[in-house]
Amino acid sequence: MADDLDWERLDSRYADDLILFRSRFDRLRHPGSGEVFERLVLESVDWVNCVAVTEDGRLVMVRQFRFGIAASTLETPGGMVDPGEDHAAAVQRELREETGFGGGTWSYLGAVEPNPAFHDHLCHHWLAEGVRPLGEPRPGRGERIEVVSMTAAEVVRSARDGEIRHALALSALSRVLDLWGTRNAEVAD
Amino acid sequence: MADDLDWERLDSRYADDLILFRSRFDRLRHPGSGEVFERLVLESVDWVNCVAVTEDGRLVMVRQFRFGIAASTLETPGGMVDPGEDHAAAVQRELREETGFGGGTWSYLGAVEPNPAFHDHLCHHWLAEGVRPLGEPRPGRGERIEVVSMTAAEVVRSARDGEIRHALALSALSRVLDLWGTRNAEVAD
Repeated sequence: MADDLDWERLDSRYADDLILFRSRFDRLRHPGSGEVFERLVLESVDWVNCVAVTEDGRLVMVRQFRFGIAASTLETPGGMVDPGEDHAAAVQRELREETGFGGGTWSYLGAVEPNPAFHDHLCHHWLAEGVRPLGEPRPGRGERIEVVSMTAAEVVRSARDGEIRHALALSALSRVLDLWGTRNAEVAD
Repeated sequence: MADDLDWERLDSRYADDLILFRSRFDRLRHPGSGEVFERLVLESVDWVNCVAVTEDGRLVMVRQFRFGIAASTLETPGGMVDPGEDHAAAVQRELREETGFGGGTWSYLGAVEPNPAFHDHLCHHWLAEGVRPLGEPRPGRGERIEVVSMTAAEVVRSARDGEIRHALALSALSRVLDLWGTRNAEVAD
């Protein structure tokens, strides 16, 4: 069945540079009707974030102003992979820059497609256990970040209260913490 | 502390129409240094998706070609809210159009910010229990969708295998199913 879902790409054109993205318009042929449609792709590098846990079991979180919603958010540390950089290196660099924390044992939690309808990038999630302060944070000139130390219970409460609403932060956290008290029993198998 | 994180917006300009988004560039003043930076905001309507469960406990899922990653994905039903439409109405309309299913009892699972760094929209998650086929699917001319009926265990397996990687589909599913076998015990409180 999967072949029958695939659209044929006829051509692509690039439009404005969008700082974070290169915008591309593809023309594609519908696999059923043959009709041609124009569709947007926002090309970018991959993103990374991490659930960073200190030696005494506290989570290292960050608050920062987010331009899309014009408000500050509570999130997991993370950011964009530099061109040519490995995502494992990127996430350790971002944690160090944003919070001053590092070290510990790192495990890969997997990747998600933030929105495959128009984004081509992945967000890679990592768990860092036993991190410790290595020095002062080193945010970029264009960043302003507050470091927040929280218990696991406080993080779960912040998710349930709606204080943490960043889908990619919740995605990383959901692989380590039972955020929602899920109700498997209600869905028969 | 939150006030200290807020950036002052100096002005905004709109750029290309991006089919799904209106692209806006804001100039903002850093709350610490006073330096001015230009930042991208992609304005759009909100999105919706749902965990749709039939009367016999199966999940109604969809496969479709996604232009951002140029591959087909396995997802929860959903889409964009029409201008002026309520998200509760939008999600029921999208389920009906994409799958032909409807009816049942609907509960709101909450909203997430898909990426507040540059998106201004929310994605609203719904649970629909006891849905049933009401007729044929009615996809739009620019859509091609396969309806897939799965058990909860198959959905969990597809998440763990990486077949479901759409962050917003996983976000909705994670509020109903224990997708990851979370390890709360490893994070001391």
